[in-house]
Amino acid sequence: MRVELLTVGDELLLGDTVNGNAAWLGRRLADHGVEVTRSVVVGDELDVIVEAVASALGRADAVITTGGLGPTYDDVTRDALAKAAGVGLVRDPALERRLRERAEASGRMLQPMAFRMAEVPEGAGLLRNSAGTAPGLRVELPGGIAYALPGVPFEMRTIMDEVVLPELAAIAGPPGVARRTLRTARVWESVLATRLAEVEAMDGVRLAYLPDPAEVKIRVTAAGPDAPGRLAAAEARVRELLGDVVYGVEDETLARVVHRLLVERSATVAAAESLTGGLISAELTAAPGSSETYAGGIVAYATEMKARLLGVPDALLAEHGAVHPDVAAAMAAGVRDRLGTTYGLSVTGVAGPEPQDGRPVGTVYIGLAGPEGTRTVVSPKLPVPGKGPEIRAVIQRMTVVHALELLRRALLGLDVAEWSEESRRDREEWG
Amino acid sequence: MRVELLTVGDELLLGDTVNGNAAWLGRRLADHGVEVTRSVVVGDELDVIVEAVASALGRADAVITTGGLGPTYDDVTRDALAKAAGVGLVRDPALERRLRERAEASGRMLQPMAFRMAEVPEGAGLLRNSAGTAPGLRVELPGGIAYALPGVPFEMRTIMDEVVLPELAAIAGPPGVARRTLRTARVWESVLATRLAEVEAMDGVRLAYLPDPAEVKIRVTAAGPDAPGRLAAAEARVRELLGDVVYGVEDETLARVVHRLLVERSATVAAAESLTGGLISAELTAAPGSSETYAGGIVAYATEMKARLLGVPDALLAEHGAVHPDVAAAMAAGVRDRLGTTYGLSVTGVAGPEPQDGRPVGTVYIGLAGPEGTRTVVSPKLPVPGKGPEIRAVIQRMTVVHALELLRRALLGLDVAEWSEESRRDREEWG
Repeated sequence: MRVELLTVGDELLLGDTVNGNAAWLGRRLADHGVEVTRSVVVGDELDVIVEAVASALGRADAVITTGGLGPTYDDVTRDALAKAAGVGLVRDPALERRLRERAEASGRMLQPMAFRMAEVPEGAGLLRNSAGTAPGLRVELPGGIAYALPGVPFEMRTIMDEVVLPELAAIAGPPGVARRTLRTARVWESVLATRLAEVEAMDGVRLAYLPDPAEVKIRVTAAGPDAPGRLAAAEARVRELLGDVVYGVEDETLARVVHRLLVERSATVAAAESLTGGLISAELTAAPGSSETYAGGIVAYATEMKARLLGVPDALLAEHGAVHPDVAAAMAAGVRDRLGTTYGLSVTGVAGPEPQDGRPVGTVYIGLAGPEGTRTVVSPKLPVPGKGPEIRAVIQRMTVVHALELLRRALLGLDVAEWSEESRRDREEWG
Repeated sequence: MRVELLTVGDELLLGDTVNGNAAWLGRRLADHGVEVTRSVVVGDELDVIVEAVASALGRADAVITTGGLGPTYDDVTRDALAKAAGVGLVRDPALERRLRERAEASGRMLQPMAFRMAEVPEGAGLLRNSAGTAPGLRVELPGGIAYALPGVPFEMRTIMDEVVLPELAAIAGPPGVARRTLRTARVWESVLATRLAEVEAMDGVRLAYLPDPAEVKIRVTAAGPDAPGRLAAAEARVRELLGDVVYGVEDETLARVVHRLLVERSATVAAAESLTGGLISAELTAAPGSSETYAGGIVAYATEMKARLLGVPDALLAEHGAVHPDVAAAMAAGVRDRLGTTYGLSVTGVAGPEPQDGRPVGTVYIGLAGPEGTRTVVSPKLPVPGKGPEIRAVIQRMTVVHALELLRRALLGLDVAEWSEESRRDREEWG
């Protein structure tokens, strides 16, 4: 079954918002065996929407629209679907009643414009919205079916999950394609692609590489007879070829994997940050159940705070500045001792755009203090991604990934010697 | 001048990635007086791309494609543009030489597949890529011009800023539309819209409301003769009607505004977090120059860490748990004292999805400790946005916004009594 997405909203064309809804829909539909063949964004223009709906249904079986179902004058999706169907808009008394009740319950005064949300194209089906006010709409048109959903993300997702996806999955039947996404960190996309060339050559198998700063997701797709069996064989071969470079699957972020490994070892971690400004802590706390493994963290942003809050020796900071392997080691031990956790994870470095303490942009030291006083410091060579203020955010993200990957490898007992070697050489060079 | 965007990539249709490039392009083009009338996403399919380019140029003057210029077999944009132009692909010796040089310089082995990036449609213009390997392309077609850019964001942006935008701006001429985005926090979209109804009625003026958790951006657009003059009048009226509800313009985030206000007062701030897990610190450090005003922070995630790291009295935690106005006050004073800053900003609360310490999801206390021992605690009533694991991230975001807004209002000497009243009532109710 082929579906197109039509996102309505000037703000999307003007770049005020990124199209998160389309991404979510694409993924969810794919999971249910429904292929999204095109995704279009148009502005809040009645006749443009009418034309876009018609042309989508000229190519696909159904179109899913989001946006334009609100109460303001620029919300014209209802009107567009009525026009496309050649019918008028009628006031639905039950919807009107519900609008009034919800407004009363939340103590808000109902603005007159809100009653537009009680109008529906004549003959349209209503898609129940348990998370909000305006229902979605199902409108049958010459070329297929149009599903109209609110633009508010959690309302759209709720209606999709509760009403539309079950309906589409029933029409689509079992998927003839099987997919699985494997997650890797710290290895170049082209190196992965070269190593996995034989998997690309497997019958009905396709690999796609989705890079992020310091991470690459590999989407393995298998089609044809016994797609699930082909997928399993392809995945197994990828894992054989890549080994422990693969850290997780699907939405299993590094933080979730680290959380699981800590739980299995009844261990806890605390984070000492500088250039990452709180992002490592935020990443660790995003994993469900993180309160079991993450106790807290310290953001020692100013140099003197590394001494004041973490006990890094003043003499060390005075001699070498904040960006040095021994500073990372002291920060890691300091946060572990102060919070009483099993592990302390630290970062210090130069996010840019300017060098710091004589160290170039992209210089980063990551420290890990473990049980029995073990200390590890690694220094990934971060590729500086271009110029300008953006590089800071990219370097921060890469640092977060490298830090979590160091912890993961340490918990699994995997080798980090190559990493350590680079920081040892730096120590020799800089003293 | 009318332009359409064509983003190429299966990963976008499958929802692996959100279309950040299209959002950036939409905004940048609008700033240069170029209207984006449609934005389409298609997969890595040669003939679909050919058709989509042709149909875009049937509606608009130019189409900007992103993606599909890499070295792997699914990168087919070059081939599609060659087919659309009715020409073949030719090897460019200068590009090939550059490819080899870059690979040598970064110590990487050049994979054979990489040479695809040295091929160009015959007769195409090359758009210099100072940030990466493959150049962009300019291809003249029957309906207009196709600009093909890499999908890697900073490469795409670099080529756009350096080559394409100047060219398009010169063709487009001065914009007939003027825009300005005003930023507000803590007021409902519908309340703002009702208050600003008279501005909507002004000649040639249009308002769009772009909501985020606890924030609403108001985009004011003016068209027609003297669009800039109309815009200035509309903006002035909005500011008169909303007063200090407007905290900034365009990309002036709350964190940047707070940073500026702290600099003006030669003041510094430290953050003590719990449910927000490091996000307030990350937000504050994202503002350029933040090292001048933000000294550091403490993420006291586990309840006992509030005592251990911030000096919150054990008895208080034992009696009331971590979610209480007095805990917020103690955390704020504790982080300010420990880091020696002018202000300490704290949050404690229940992000969900489960209640905590007998407090329902959405209960949040925000503390601010200031000079001369002043302490303020507010308790915004966060609307709980639906159900499920997503509400956690939304409540965290709303809490970050409320916390920064509290600091902003305090620095400006604005009233926070209404906020404080809610927490005083809670204290009476719960003891």
